[in-house]
Parts: sequence; structure tokens; C-alpha cells
Amino acid sequence: MTGTRAGEVAAETGAARDAGLRFIGRIGTPWTDRADCPRQGGADGPACRVELFAPFDRALAGLEAYETVELLYWLDRSRRDLLVQNPTSDGTLYGTFALRSPERPNPIGTALVRLVAIDGPVLTVRGLDCLDGTPLLDIKPDRDSFTPKAPPKPGAG
Amino acid sequence: MTGTRAGEVAAETGAARDAGLRFIGRIGTPWTDRADCPRQGGADGPACRVELFAPFDRALAGLEAYETVELLYWLDRSRRDLLVQNPTSDGTLYGTFALRSPERPNPIGTALVRLVAIDGPVLTVRGLDCLDGTPLLDIKPDRDSFTPKAPPKPGAG
Repeated sequence: MTGTRAGEVAAETGAARDAGLRFIGRIGTPWTDRADCPRQGGADGPACRVELFAPFDRALAGLEAYETVELLYWLDRSRRDLLVQNPTSDGTLYGTFALRSPERPNPIGTALVRLVAIDGPVLTVRGLDCLDGTPLLDIKPDRDSFTPKAPPKPGAG
Repeated sequence: MTGTRAGEVAAETGAARDAGLRFIGRIGTPWTDRADCPRQGGADGPACRVELFAPFDRALAGLEAYETVELLYWLDRSRRDLLVQNPTSDGTLYGTFALRSPERPNPIGTALVRLVAIDGPVLTVRGLDCLDGTPLLDIKPDRDSFTPKAPPKPGAG
């Protein structure tokens, strides 16, 4: 994973030690090869299994109130050095931040998924496009469905 | 930041070393105290400054095509051990994953912001609610505006 296609720019940016992550669970999907993953998940996609590791399953309490939730996950099979990418056959170049490519300096995927079921530490969701075995980082209620639980503050702009 | 309010559950989950992050830039906002931050940013909020560190500014090429972009950032002043939280004065308890609280095992904030301007390595955006000086992790086109640049794959679905 160190070659580049025509026009691509890779950078050596040193060790990634500014902050550390904990994997809090694991995502199961039907896709075991990158070539099989859909380019973007949809609510009509297959049911996928999201399993929380203990003790993080305790933090699921109340999530059942939401139909749509945001998942953050670690794209652990991505390279991190590409700044400019050549994703198409016509050779057009794009900066990494103008793409939703898994290849990025901090390969964190985000998806809005439909929450189908919660069974103990296991969620069933639709709308993912990542590889089977992808580590889970976070779960949040969809921002559009979520109402802050504490009252608004005067600084709110 | 180690006390808990009534009913809150904190867990000792060990070192966060499953993966490492690079801070790729820094976010400037009007808020220097947590008590002043709005609970949720809005498109009518103040203009904020997002500065990319070299060489990551090279990865901005093409971002100007998007009116709405997704920012990921590291909530570096958050505690990470809370599994169940008590955010309201009435004492109702919520699992951390049922809240968009900055206090979470992997304190990554996500926001959809309006892209007002790009000037070299500096973006001007509206819609943030984080503290001044928050480290930037990633920028992506809004998923609803983005069309994958390579053709759909048969696995999609």
C-alpha cells in the first residue's frame, strides 16, 4: 500500500501520537474484501451487527429512543499518507479532504445508520459500507433527532 | 474531573493505545470556557477559523466545491471514563452513547458546518460549538452532497 497512482501526493508525516483511541467494539458486515464494499451505505443496505465490548455496553442505555444513530469507526486497513488522490479512471486529482475515501490522515469513518434492534451489547443497523471486522470508536444519536438534555446556554450563537 | 454526579457510572478502561491520531490543524472559536459553548452549533452561529497544519493543507484541493462539510475534531478537555451520565437537574440518567456530550470514551466531535471561505490553509466556517483551540482530525464533504468519484460497485446494496 505504498505506491501512488499518477499525480497522487503522499507525505511522510511522522508518528500518530497526538492522542490515543480505544476500540470499544467491532462491526460485522458482509464485506471481507475492499472491492466488495459499496461506495456509500444506504438505509436499504443489508443488516449489519455492531457488538460492544464490556464495559462499554453499559453506555447504550437510552439509545433505543433514536431511529437514526451516528457511528464512528476506525478504517484499520487504510493507508494514511495520501494528500492528493486519483480515484477515477480519467485521472482527475482531488485533495483527500474533498473525498470521502477511507484513505486519509486519520482514517475515521462516519455513517448515519438506521437502528433496527438492540439486543444486550449487540446492535443491528442498516446503512454501513465498511469491511467486516472494522473497529468501533463511538455511537451518538443523530444530531437532527437529538435534543440537548440540559437547557440552552446564553452563549449559544 | 474525576467526581461523578448522582447515579453516574465511571469505568477504568485502561490506556487508549489501540490506534493513534495526528492533529492536522486547530480550530479557533469565540469560546474559551466550556460554560460558554453553545450546546449545539447552528448555521447561523459565528464565523470560526479552521487552520490546517502543513503539509495537510495540500489535501484541501477541491473542497471549495462543497457548501457543507463535515469536521471531526478531538475534544481534548473531556474526561473519557463516563459510561452513564446525569446531564440534567432532574437527575435523569443516560448512557453516554445516547448523548452527544463531549464526555465519551473516544472524545471525537463531529459537526456539519457551512463552508464560508477558503484562504490558503485557513477555512472560515459556521456551525461549530467547540472550545477555542480544539485540535482538528479530519474534513470530509457532507455525505448528502458528495457523489463517489469512482463508479458504483456491484457489491453496493
